[in-house]
Amino acid sequence: MKDVISFARGVPPVEVFPNEELLLCTEHVIRNHSAQALQYGNGAGYGPLRRHIATQYHVPVNRVVTGQGSLQLLDHLIRVTIQEGDLVFVEQPTYDRVLTLFKRAGAKLIGIGITNNAVDIEAVREHLKNGKEPKYFYSIADFQNPSGTVMSLNLRKELTALANQYGFLIIEDGPYRHLRYKGNPIPRLFDLAPDNVVYMSSYSKRISPGLRTGYMILPEKKAQMVIQMATDSYVSPSYFDQAIVLDFIDQGFLEKQINRLVKVFSSRIEILLAALEDHMGPFGNWTRPDGGFYVGLTLNKDVQPVDINKASEQGLLLTDGRGFFLDGGERFVRLPFCALKEEQITEGVRRLAEIIQA
Amino acid sequence: MKDVISFARGVPPVEVFPNEELLLCTEHVIRNHSAQALQYGNGAGYGPLRRHIATQYHVPVNRVVTGQGSLQLLDHLIRVTIQEGDLVFVEQPTYDRVLTLFKRAGAKLIGIGITNNAVDIEAVREHLKNGKEPKYFYSIADFQNPSGTVMSLNLRKELTALANQYGFLIIEDGPYRHLRYKGNPIPRLFDLAPDNVVYMSSYSKRISPGLRTGYMILPEKKAQMVIQMATDSYVSPSYFDQAIVLDFIDQGFLEKQINRLVKVFSSRIEILLAALEDHMGPFGNWTRPDGGFYVGLTLNKDVQPVDINKASEQGLLLTDGRGFFLDGGERFVRLPFCALKEEQITEGVRRLAEIIQA
Repeated sequence: MKDVISFARGVPPVEVFPNEELLLCTEHVIRNHSAQALQYGNGAGYGPLRRHIATQYHVPVNRVVTGQGSLQLLDHLIRVTIQEGDLVFVEQPTYDRVLTLFKRAGAKLIGIGITNNAVDIEAVREHLKNGKEPKYFYSIADFQNPSGTVMSLNLRKELTALANQYGFLIIEDGPYRHLRYKGNPIPRLFDLAPDNVVYMSSYSKRISPGLRTGYMILPEKKAQMVIQMATDSYVSPSYFDQAIVLDFIDQGFLEKQINRLVKVFSSRIEILLAALEDHMGPFGNWTRPDGGFYVGLTLNKDVQPVDINKASEQGLLLTDGRGFFLDGGERFVRLPFCALKEEQITEGVRRLAEIIQA
Repeated sequence: MKDVISFARGVPPVEVFPNEELLLCTEHVIRNHSAQALQYGNGAGYGPLRRHIATQYHVPVNRVVTGQGSLQLLDHLIRVTIQEGDLVFVEQPTYDRVLTLFKRAGAKLIGIGITNNAVDIEAVREHLKNGKEPKYFYSIADFQNPSGTVMSLNLRKELTALANQYGFLIIEDGPYRHLRYKGNPIPRLFDLAPDNVVYMSSYSKRISPGLRTGYMILPEKKAQMVIQMATDSYVSPSYFDQAIVLDFIDQGFLEKQINRLVKVFSSRIEILLAALEDHMGPFGNWTRPDGGFYVGLTLNKDVQPVDINKASEQGLLLTDGRGFFLDGGERFVRLPFCALKEEQITEGVRRLAEIIQA
């Protein structure tokens, strides 16, 4: 039996967790902040971390909510604002868990295609003209999950202008933004239109998912509603974890850790892109992201979709591409490379090509 | 201006947080378990902690779910099983946050009175005979929040027999059970009828609320539904916090910490009961719990209800008694004593008596 290679989960690699730094931070938090960090608190999260985020994003602190990962906060926002039948635009493909959240709230979803690295802004315009005005447009503008694409500055300007014109909110999900391996960052949708964008992000990809700390910046009234939902549902999130995250930032470890991650991941993505070049040329096309966790591979029309059960028998774990789409997606393969060793990446792509040709 | 004394929140006192032990545990977790504790995982929670709980309660591990406090797990259970109009029995008074969760799910609540330390089992029987069969009976059988009462063994037997006969589930909330200052523990409702009871509890009151670790034991199919809700909503809870909790238990610190808490709290409740004896005799009656966080005071009918805003102006913070009731509760005062110094307790009761007489 071959070693199993998993392209199935977008998680950070355990070998780069900042253990030594976290030891210092936990000690610091327990010795200096235990009265607050080990106690219940406000449902919006640990005050000092909220204030740090507010300063960083130039917003008042009452617009900042922190929680057990940003997905949880999105669930709150959906619970307090989405009614059965409400219209929501999502990129297609997009993060599968977010589709689940909107669907279970009964939202009516319209997928806006991403092709050639660009979200189909004409389709957005067309829907709006036809009276299809959404409550939200959910976008991962930087190093999208699952496709790896980055929205261009022009498209960001057009999209935020439409949000402003038609009065819908963009929900910008930015967990990968800081993991840029080359090139220069593009302003966030939030930076372009802070009143038309709900911004969400997390420290899971930059420090550790086990600390479960994400945040969301919302218009004040929506923030109040989300905080009430949080308070009613679990009193408060883990102040201990959030205090550790803040200490990690305050001690300057976050920049250091991002540099460490960028070094590891940029080498892994080069290996992946080279392997795709070597093995996948005849079968499909793929993105070449400057950062993030994922390369999105789309198989050519004349190639059979990959049967993920058969792939699993061949020692290759894949996520079903259809999960990222409202419809279709059979030929889409998400390739997360961050948590794989270089030889696993090469061998994984080789196996994938073999399965495609079988 | 007098120092403010707060009888408003049932929280543990910061001065007995087990800082030194937690330092050892966090170091141990980071040095030995970082690959698992700092990563994403199963939505049901950290496997080794779930297995510990399963062993302790003699259930298979797939019946155990852990989360960011037990209230969060109750919210999940309600989301996956309560439909608008479903009938639920609650003790009256009961934990206000739980009333909020059931109400927002649209449950129809019936309050079962607690008087003279006993839940009104005849009322339960009457409702059932009249065809009012609930989906759940929510009970805090040990050192109830907010009244401090303990359900007798006989009542536990009668209630579980009714649950079995009529096919409803009891949700037993047990966070205070281990904080017993005298007398012997009574078997849990769960111990008497493990198939008719959902058991929920937490380490918040025994270790630290900041670590946000609670658990729930459910019938297998409901456990699966709750786990799916958790996974969809936030991927996984904080494995870091949960690994620390388990290490704390494994190193024998939990028993030590409970002993420490019992010593502090039993002295504080004696002070509270003495102060009530000194100042409150003419105005009401109160419970005399052998454990937990709360004494429940009910003012006599000829005494005006306490205006909590006026009390606050007098430097005494109280929770509105009506929050613990479906209706009524004006004359109910919850007195949490654990996080108050002895002189604050005495002075707080003195102020309360003064306000009542004003």
